Formats: sequence, structure tokens, C-alpha cells
Amino acid sequence: MTLAQDILNRNRRALAKGISAIENDPVQRRKLLKALGPHTGRAHVVGITGSPGAGKSSLVNQLTGSIRKSGRTVGVLAVDPTSPFSGGALLGDRIRMQDHLSDFGVFVRSMGSRGSFGGLARATKDAIQLLDAFGTDVILVETVGVGQLELDVMYAVDTTVLVLTPGAGDLIQTLKAGIMEIADIFVVNKADLDGANGVAMDVEGLLALEPEKAWRPPILLTTTRDVAGYDALDQTLTDHHRHLSCHGRMEQKRIARVQREIVDIAVARIRNIVENSLSEPGIGPDLVRQVTDRRMDAYTAAEQILDALPHLTDNNF
Amino acid sequence: MTLAQDILNRNRRALAKGISAIENDPVQRRKLLKALGPHTGRAHVVGITGSPGAGKSSLVNQLTGSIRKSGRTVGVLAVDPTSPFSGGALLGDRIRMQDHLSDFGVFVRSMGSRGSFGGLARATKDAIQLLDAFGTDVILVETVGVGQLELDVMYAVDTTVLVLTPGAGDLIQTLKAGIMEIADIFVVNKADLDGANGVAMDVEGLLALEPEKAWRPPILLTTTRDVAGYDALDQTLTDHHRHLSCHGRMEQKRIARVQREIVDIAVARIRNIVENSLSEPGIGPDLVRQVTDRRMDAYTAAEQILDALPHLTDNNF
Repeated sequence: MTLAQDILNRNRRALAKGISAIENDPVQRRKLLKALGPHTGRAHVVGITGSPGAGKSSLVNQLTGSIRKSGRTVGVLAVDPTSPFSGGALLGDRIRMQDHLSDFGVFVRSMGSRGSFGGLARATKDAIQLLDAFGTDVILVETVGVGQLELDVMYAVDTTVLVLTPGAGDLIQTLKAGIMEIADIFVVNKADLDGANGVAMDVEGLLALEPEKAWRPPILLTTTRDVAGYDALDQTLTDHHRHLSCHGRMEQKRIARVQREIVDIAVARIRNIVENSLSEPGIGPDLVRQVTDRRMDAYTAAEQILDALPHLTDNNF
Repeated sequence: MTLAQDILNRNRRALAKGISAIENDPVQRRKLLKALGPHTGRAHVVGITGSPGAGKSSLVNQLTGSIRKSGRTVGVLAVDPTSPFSGGALLGDRIRMQDHLSDFGVFVRSMGSRGSFGGLARATKDAIQLLDAFGTDVILVETVGVGQLELDVMYAVDTTVLVLTPGAGDLIQTLKAGIMEIADIFVVNKADLDGANGVAMDVEGLLALEPEKAWRPPILLTTTRDVAGYDALDQTLTDHHRHLSCHGRMEQKRIARVQREIVDIAVARIRNIVENSLSEPGIGPDLVRQVTDRRMDAYTAAEQILDALPHLTDNNF
């Protein structure tokens, strides 16, 4: 029985092992993704993003409860580049999802900076594939902040939820990071605090400036004091998923995502090869020397190193 | 007379034109960098980074005054990815550097997101080269925030100044972004505000945790109420520049920087080629189709696209 088969048979330990393999073992990763790829595409992948302190973890915890009411299974990937741990961050995961510890319909995994061969965004996208093949109904990908990594991750999800809170600067930060443009659903969390309606109105004002779209991002309010808000969010997620499926948007999104995937993998590979060729015996170190001594410009050196590349696909990605 | 020669002859209009060419015209950029490269390496390149609102612009304005006292010339590159303007952002530049408007020993330029062919970090690094060849003594590169772009830019400078302010969160943000590790000089700005000494002590505490280094990052306090702080910063910059020169560190830094440059240029080029090959007639669209339909995994598709790449250096970078 291979690891891939075990994952398809919904073996939780195999799933955990598979994600570790993705983080640490490029050869195994290739094999897994190749075997599991045909079994993906069923899950609804939801990204939960927003500034640190917006209460995303507790929202994910509550939302999981709402989703579980209908019996659908939930996978949570908590992406935290500042965490040196990955996989084994059990304590963090347990605190994070304390309401669902004994629920076998919920699978939680932290993706930290340790391991993550090929980058955290890459590892997260591949872990989504595994959870999908495992048969998870809804995959919640929670990020820690709003930056380039988060943008990268959000390109791999079907639905992006942007979590805001009453409090200065939040909206500006996300605007700057370009997250606002890709949000499908806005949530004003900690809605029991002063200013929550103000934030909702600010978002509404910003959305009004945008051209009419087939999906108009709704703005929801949530607070840990009232579970109804999370039920409403769950419903809105389902609405968005249906919207994507019915209007051929899912197909468009998937093609754009696949293009991005292929480019990212190819580029990461070339980066690896070029980096190695600059330090290993060959023309690399000489080119570096020439540019350092200002006898050649970096563009010419880059050209020459690309010209001298050996067969690109000799070794594993 | 070529543009490159005009720049070497310290023609300010040529310099401005050259930076615009870097942002918009890859062919001209290649020519300029090739011609000017041998004339670079003299300037002291200083990065000024820190959270938005830390008062970096006013610090740069004041620091420019301190540097100009000794007659040294100053070039300022203000890197702001949120600005849709670049080059032509005259009004912003004027407000920014109001004290030095009529000083021909000061050259100010905004680098915004418009144009910036090949990315803003790339354009900024190339603009540094131009200012260097122009004969600028000190180049101040001011960034707007603390993220991946800022880290990228800081790899291209000799000395990194991290500007902090009394106020919650600042230090945590920069810690998270990994800027703290690369800072050569810490400045607590707005030092007249409550809590300034507290921030300085926090930084000191963090530095104490790090292993002993040849250069121990000093912590300076500045406030617009006292020009002495900026004079001290100027002196510390000079100290650090001397430290780099005397300990062979400059050479090390330069080699690391050149390696990074070559890799970045090569990778950007491959990204461009692969992106095009996926949408243009050929095997690209078919590979995308196969991955979208789950008949192939993205890693295999990336491999095949790299295998099918035409000659890498046919057209200009």
C-alpha cells in the first residue's frame, strides 16, 4: 500500500506524513502529487487572510463549527512564516482548534518556515492538493498577515475571505498589500467593538468605486458572542462556491492557477540551478568575478549563465 | 554624445532621463548599465527602512542637510510601490525634500509602481548604479514599509538603517519581516515622544541576544527638534562605510550582491519566457489544458515547458 493510496483511503496519519513529505522531500512530493492529482478538484478551498490580530484563528475555529453542523469535513492549514515549526506544531494547533480536538471530521496542520523545501507558499499549495485528495469538503487556509506570501497563497484558493477589525490602519494595510482587490467576502470581526459599522461602511464605500462585477463581495459582521455570524459566513462561502461553478468562473480560476503553478515551479527550478552554477566549479564563479570587478554587467552575466545551463531536467525538482 | 556620456559628465537631465529609460526601456537599460558599470562602486549606498509613519522622509530630508555640510553630494531614491507614479512624481519629491530644492548637490527621484519594467526592486537597483556613475557621494534609498520588496532593495545597499518610533508594534513588525537581522544602524526617530528610550532598550536587549559581530549595530536617537542627531547619524554612516572597506567586508557584500543580481535577472528572464510560452501557440496551452483536466501534474508540465524552451538569449532581457 503506497502513501498515496493510504491518503485516498482517508488515513489521517498518512495525510500528516504526506504533508511532511511535501515539506521535506522533493522526490516523494513529486510522486505524491502525481498520484493524487487526478483525485483532486472536489474540495472548496477558502483563504482566510487579514492583518495580525484580526482574530483569524478564532474565526476559523468558529467557522469550522458552523461547517461541521452539516456533516461536511474541514481541513485547516495555518500558514505562519514566522513560526520556526511546521507539522509538529501540535501545541499551537491544539490551542488554535480546541473545540475540534476529538472531531475526526476536522484535520488541522500548521505550515511553518521550517522545512518547506521550495518555499512556504509552494508547500501550502501542495498541501491543499493532499487535503483535497483526502476527501476534505472545505479547506480553510489561514494566513498570518497581509503580504506577498499571502497574495501568493490566495491565488491557490477558490474563495478569499478578508478579515478586518474595528481599529485604525487595518484597511489601509490591506489596501496597500493589494489584498482588497482579490477579496470575495469581507468579514468585520470583533463586531461587538466600537467602530465595526464604520469599517463595514468604509469597505462599502471602496467597493462602490469599483466597476460592477458578477459577484459583488458581501460584507459580514462576526463576533464570538454570536454564532449566527459564522453560520452566515458558511452560507456565504457556499453561495460563492456555487457562483463560481455556475458561471464557468471555476474553470477560469483553475486555468489561471495552473498557469501560475507551472510558471512558479519552472522559475523555482531555474533559480536553484542558476544559484548552484554560480558557486560550483564552472563558468559561474568567473562570471561573478567579472561583474564584481566591473568588467561585465550583470545582464550579460545572466545571459551567459543561461546559455551555459546544462540539461534542465536531469535531476528532480 | 550618448546618454551614458552625459550622465558621466554630471548632466542632471541626462540622469533623470536615464532612470526613466531604466524603468521603461529594457534595451536602453542594457546599454546604459553596460556603459556605466565600469564607472560605479564609488558611492556609499545607504538604505533607510522602517514601518510607514516612522518619519523616514523627514529623516532623509534632515540627514541630507547634515551630509551636505561637508560638500558631499546626495542622491535620494524614494521607493514607494503604492505610488502609481514614478519619475514624474515631482510634487511629492518637492514636498519631501523642500529644504534642498535649489541645491544642485542633491538629486531626488521617486521610484513608483508605474513603469518599472522588470519590477520595482530591479529598477531601484539599476537606478543606484546610475546615481553612482553620475558621481553621487551618498545614495539614500528610502523605502515605504518593511516587506519583501524592502528586503530585496536592502540587499543592494552597503549600509541599512532601520528607523523605529516610540509606538506599539513597530519593532514586532520589523522583526517579523526579517529586517532586524540586516540592520547595521538603528535609529529611534521622534525621540522627543514618550517611550523613545524604551524602544532603544528593547533593541539593545534584542541585540544582546545575538552572537558578537565585528560591527555592533549602534542605536541612535533623532528628533526634528535637534539637528545634532542627524549629524551623529551621518558620522555613524561614515564609520560603517569605513568599517566595510577596512575589513574586506565591502568585497564580501559585493560578491553576494552580484550573485543575487545575476540570479534575479536570469530568473526574471525565464519567468517572462515561460509565462509567454504558456499562452502563445505551441505546447504551452496544451500543457495547461492537461494539468487543468488533471491528466498531468504541474511539476511534469513545468519540466516539459523548460525542455521545450527555445534559445534563451534570442531577444533582449
